[in-house]
Amino acid sequence: MYKYSFLNDYSEGAHPRILEALTRTNMLQEAGYGEDQFSLEAVRLIRKLIERPDADIHLISGGTQTNLTALSAMLRPYESIIAVDSAHICVHETGAIEATGHKINLAAGENGKISAPAIEEVVIAHGDEHMVSPRVVFISQSTELGTIYSKQELKDIAAICKKYNLYLYLDGARLGSGLTSESSDINIKELAALVDVFYIGGTKNGALLGEALVINHPQIKPRFRYFLKQRGALLSKGRILGVQFTELFKDGLYFELARHANQMAQKLTHEITSLGFGFQTNSPSNQIFPIFPNQVIESLNKEYRFYTWSKIDADHTSVRLVTSWATPPEAIDRFISDLAKLA
Amino acid sequence: MYKYSFLNDYSEGAHPRILEALTRTNMLQEAGYGEDQFSLEAVRLIRKLIERPDADIHLISGGTQTNLTALSAMLRPYESIIAVDSAHICVHETGAIEATGHKINLAAGENGKISAPAIEEVVIAHGDEHMVSPRVVFISQSTELGTIYSKQELKDIAAICKKYNLYLYLDGARLGSGLTSESSDINIKELAALVDVFYIGGTKNGALLGEALVINHPQIKPRFRYFLKQRGALLSKGRILGVQFTELFKDGLYFELARHANQMAQKLTHEITSLGFGFQTNSPSNQIFPIFPNQVIESLNKEYRFYTWSKIDADHTSVRLVTSWATPPEAIDRFISDLAKLA
Amino acid sequence: MYKYSFLNDYSEGAHPRILEALTRTNMLQEAGYGEDQFSLEAVRLIRKLIERPDADIHLISGGTQTNLTALSAMLRPYESIIAVDSAHICVHETGAIEATGHKINLAAGENGKISAPAIEEVVIAHGDEHMVSPRVVFISQSTELGTIYSKQELKDIAAICKKYNLYLYLDGARLGSGLTSESSDINIKELAALVDVFYIGGTKNGALLGEALVINHPQIKPRFRYFLKQRGALLSKGRILGVQFTELFKDGLYFELARHANQMAQKLTHEITSLGFGFQTNSPSNQIFPIFPNQVIESLNKEYRFYTWSKIDADHTSVRLVTSWATPPEAIDRFISDLAKLA
Amino acid sequence: MYKYSFLNDYSEGAHPRILEALTRTNMLQEAGYGEDQFSLEAVRLIRKLIERPDADIHLISGGTQTNLTALSAMLRPYESIIAVDSAHICVHETGAIEATGHKINLAAGENGKISAPAIEEVVIAHGDEHMVSPRVVFISQSTELGTIYSKQELKDIAAICKKYNLYLYLDGARLGSGLTSESSDINIKELAALVDVFYIGGTKNGALLGEALVINHPQIKPRFRYFLKQRGALLSKGRILGVQFTELFKDGLYFELARHANQMAQKLTHEITSLGFGFQTNSPSNQIFPIFPNQVIESLNKEYRFYTWSKIDADHTSVRLVTSWATPPEAIDRFISDLAKLA
Repeated sequence: MYKYSFLNDYSEGAHPRILEALTRTNMLQEAGYGEDQFSLEAVRLIRKLIERPDADIHLISGGTQTNLTALSAMLRPYESIIAVDSAHICVHETGAIEATGHKINLAAGENGKISAPAIEEVVIAHGDEHMVSPRVVFISQSTELGTIYSKQELKDIAAICKKYNLYLYLDGARLGSGLTSESSDINIKELAALVDVFYIGGTKNGALLGEALVINHPQIKPRFRYFLKQRGALLSKGRILGVQFTELFKDGLYFELARHANQMAQKLTHEITSLGFGFQTNSPSNQIFPIFPNQVIESLNKEYRFYTWSKIDADHTSVRLVTSWATPPEAIDRFISDLAKLA
Repeated sequence: MYKYSFLNDYSEGAHPRILEALTRTNMLQEAGYGEDQFSLEAVRLIRKLIERPDADIHLISGGTQTNLTALSAMLRPYESIIAVDSAHICVHETGAIEATGHKINLAAGENGKISAPAIEEVVIAHGDEHMVSPRVVFISQSTELGTIYSKQELKDIAAICKKYNLYLYLDGARLGSGLTSESSDINIKELAALVDVFYIGGTKNGALLGEALVINHPQIKPRFRYFLKQRGALLSKGRILGVQFTELFKDGLYFELARHANQMAQKLTHEITSLGFGFQTNSPSNQIFPIFPNQVIESLNKEYRFYTWSKIDADHTSVRLVTSWATPPEAIDRFISDLAKLA
Repeated sequence: MYKYSFLNDYSEGAHPRILEALTRTNMLQEAGYGEDQFSLEAVRLIRKLIERPDADIHLISGGTQTNLTALSAMLRPYESIIAVDSAHICVHETGAIEATGHKINLAAGENGKISAPAIEEVVIAHGDEHMVSPRVVFISQSTELGTIYSKQELKDIAAICKKYNLYLYLDGARLGSGLTSESSDINIKELAALVDVFYIGGTKNGALLGEALVINHPQIKPRFRYFLKQRGALLSKGRILGVQFTELFKDGLYFELARHANQMAQKLTHEITSLGFGFQTNSPSNQIFPIFPNQVIESLNKEYRFYTWSKIDADHTSVRLVTSWATPPEAIDRFISDLAKLA
Repeated sequence: MYKYSFLNDYSEGAHPRILEALTRTNMLQEAGYGEDQFSLEAVRLIRKLIERPDADIHLISGGTQTNLTALSAMLRPYESIIAVDSAHICVHETGAIEATGHKINLAAGENGKISAPAIEEVVIAHGDEHMVSPRVVFISQSTELGTIYSKQELKDIAAICKKYNLYLYLDGARLGSGLTSESSDINIKELAALVDVFYIGGTKNGALLGEALVINHPQIKPRFRYFLKQRGALLSKGRILGVQFTELFKDGLYFELARHANQMAQKLTHEITSLGFGFQTNSPSNQIFPIFPNQVIESLNKEYRFYTWSKIDADHTSVRLVTSWATPPEAIDRFISDLAKLA
């Protein structure tokens, strides 16, 4: 047994309101495959929130499936995706993108973020039919290292994409945390206006499961449900995604939960800093990467769960601590109190 | 509005006990990706039920995803699947199998069922490197036309598979209905002993979502989780599948629900027969295919939902009526009463 | 040793003029990848012949590679091809098309030919995102059974393709034989005007290797060289294909060779008929399918090479005899003389 | 018009003996698909040369097709390839490997060569089912930058492959040049003993077209012809590859041609050095990368053809000069004489 797990933001089930909504609507007979009233309502709520009445929105069970379905639908066979090497699709999806037949071109990045010049460099290096033709830029918000793009950075990336006729795709597995971070200077409407396709992650922010894929670009909309079905991403009881996203977006619950996760992470960051420890990256979201002496990590490991991240030097290593909508302040307090004894 | 939908067996949410179990276990912190205690318990229960302690069991969100992940994992690139032309993978999965690179060889079938000689004929016709090499036989129980294989038929198919070194795969989207049908002469343990891989469908028998894939053949077990992850089939909150299958199998709920669906279908069959109508196939499971005059169908369509299936002659058409764990006897009574007025 | 092989039309090397042309041009330094002067000249000659100055033409080493590259380039991932079950892509290409991710929908056929109504039937049966979306019709001229489409049949097929927005693709591995058959009522210009994409087979009509893919439809032209490169179909010494097609088309050699092959087949057909034997199909091209008693086949097998085709009844079987540009009349005479002794 | 092209080693046709052999054997009737006597003889000669009577050897038309067919046949869907970022498969094959569904993991390299520690680093970083599983190491000899691996380097790489159960694959598009380089300390027999699969490039060393793929590892041999056929790599007139490789290997012509190419490159290197220019890499093979002032390149471009390679500084750029079996010493002399005037 352990005192608390900071392994990830999907250790618990769903926010209680989600389960209540599923229970409340359970016995209604509804159409299958996302054509039920709840899915339609969720789509309506999200369209309204982002002020894009023309957006095509599809509810999908998980992030890897969303990425592989959307990205492969955006590409012709000889086209590729540009991403930083720490991007989720490059590392932790078991080659799911390549399994759809597409190369990922690596671009230089810093702290998990790609830059407009790095994108341009990749595009310029690919000029003829002996090479793939880059067509999509993949970014995450917040990134896999907990960092977030500023509005200006996103604008610069969007501009370079426009210049070279690239689609801009944003993986929003942790979009809630990214948007509600105190460091964020962009809201979901502004973000939606800058990207061609993005998804709003539910699984890591209070849903049982589910991601809402938003397609703005008109060329990617036609027949998208064919792609979903072919990839096994069209749930027969699509209602269970619809009910959840309706609940998350009907009165701002989604943002409230994300804000809580961020606050818990900030609290951790503040206290860990106070104890004199540093961090691998300056993360303003719900994933933080403190650096501890190895023997501190060894002791913490007996009572807490978290991932050991990168070796810093012979005696120090960074760890990843993730908070969520479900993290109680008491868990933070206890962790800090135990850490203080080891410091 | 309509009085009742016989469109399918996934019009409602989940059996109430499923939702209760999800609620009860909601706030426990669990490991992700199917390594939580509930998934482990579900696996244990199913292994015990089928008396295969060595079986590898994976919980997956939907049927198409299960089929495409499992079948592609069973094949080398030049190998193919043998199936009848009415098989789900041949018609209603948007080419999901071919999208993984594999051909499906059609074998002659009757009433949705493949026969051992038809399998043999396909195998014999494929002899050298200019043709694909058949390696898997795909069957469904109950079939897409509501029929079920007898124990002897399954034994014959399994024998021909053994003879030609073919894997036998069984799509159990409606396995509950197939096994609890009054016409069934095989139980799940016997069935599991005859096939190399099969899945136990949850979505169409009371779960919110979820299929339990059972791998018996030792060659298909290694590294199967890599396939799951690559296809986007490894849910981060795998617990929600684990909780459901634990609930379905801890005390026989799964079979109870399937039995109810069958009873409702039999009731429908009995009453429709009494009213003098015939059927397209003789289905002992929860999908039935009565033949009605076209104007009767037109009238029924105003108050009930169901799929129109095949044109029988200029004046008659078959329809598909599906019952489920959630179908109340009153819905049957009302339908029959309305039909009687039209007969 | 055997007296003669009727196994196929690629038993010999190339027509002597081809080898002379390769030798004559050998030491010129030329651009790679099909941008040499000979490939450009071959393209010019074919464009002129078919009176399509706008056609994109690519020279590719073999038929399967041509089919898989062209067909996959014509389709979105969820789209499929319609073909008869005897089509080369359905049987003898080891699932090459499915390996690119696409389903082939089988349409009813007769004597190796598909009909417009059969195409329409398949299209109508595919209506929503749960099924693939047919997009290309595949035909061969001459067909795999030696038969040929009449101009009217091709017009009907082209019309149904237009009606349903399908591309029409013609596999011309044996196009020479098809066009120069005495039964043919269509020339290459007329044929080219009816199809969206087709290829002119060189390998089976006097070349060392090579097929000329002709793309008429403007939507399939862009970036086709990317597809060629990705599939390994862009030969670095593209000149060797260019030299051959230039030689074949600069003065009609292609048609002369095909005419000879047909004449040899007709001679065989005439003589076999005279000896009292029947045929499985009525083939006007360079593949014929006589039916012989089994013991006659057994005897012939000792001195000639050919494929045994289909069992007709307990005592009779059809065989396939193929003639080519290289078949000498003496080989026919000898075969007939030996057959006469067995009749 | 230009004086000479140093663009590549495939600007001319074939060595005259190749054309003579094709002409000499032209009218013999032979079996198709690589089962002709010439292909069998070529296989026998290569087996004898490398002293591997058990090797499976297949003749294939081009390098990209050889790489994509062999590499995809060596991998399960979740497995990946490790290569340096300058490897041909990473850059100049239009994503052909990814199009077969596989990721390429980049390893650190120097001068186009991968090192054993760099391979180990990649392997260690890939530990569970959320990541691909590296299974093949890809190297080229000579490399894309003209460098060659020493025997010790190859032994180290082979040892690390053995340690981690990785296959070692060697792309020998320019194997002749690599083996006959004065800097080479390994012969083809020793090289063949260290790798699991490699190919002997014909196209770039005197053949019209063709690469000889050699499979040593027993697990990769079974049913390899199915892979060839599925990828369109089984030429119906396989004889034309057989005749060429027989000619190249029956008396050492292959090595003689490669040696000549190297000598021409060395001559170029020596003379360019004498004129006071430096090089981007120290290449002992038939591709060299001298660095010239930009205005020298501009002048040379008017009379010679070659690729401009990398920007060195504001005023200097490297170019790639490639020699071949066909390069006459006079072409070198003329180039040097012209260069001397610009120096």
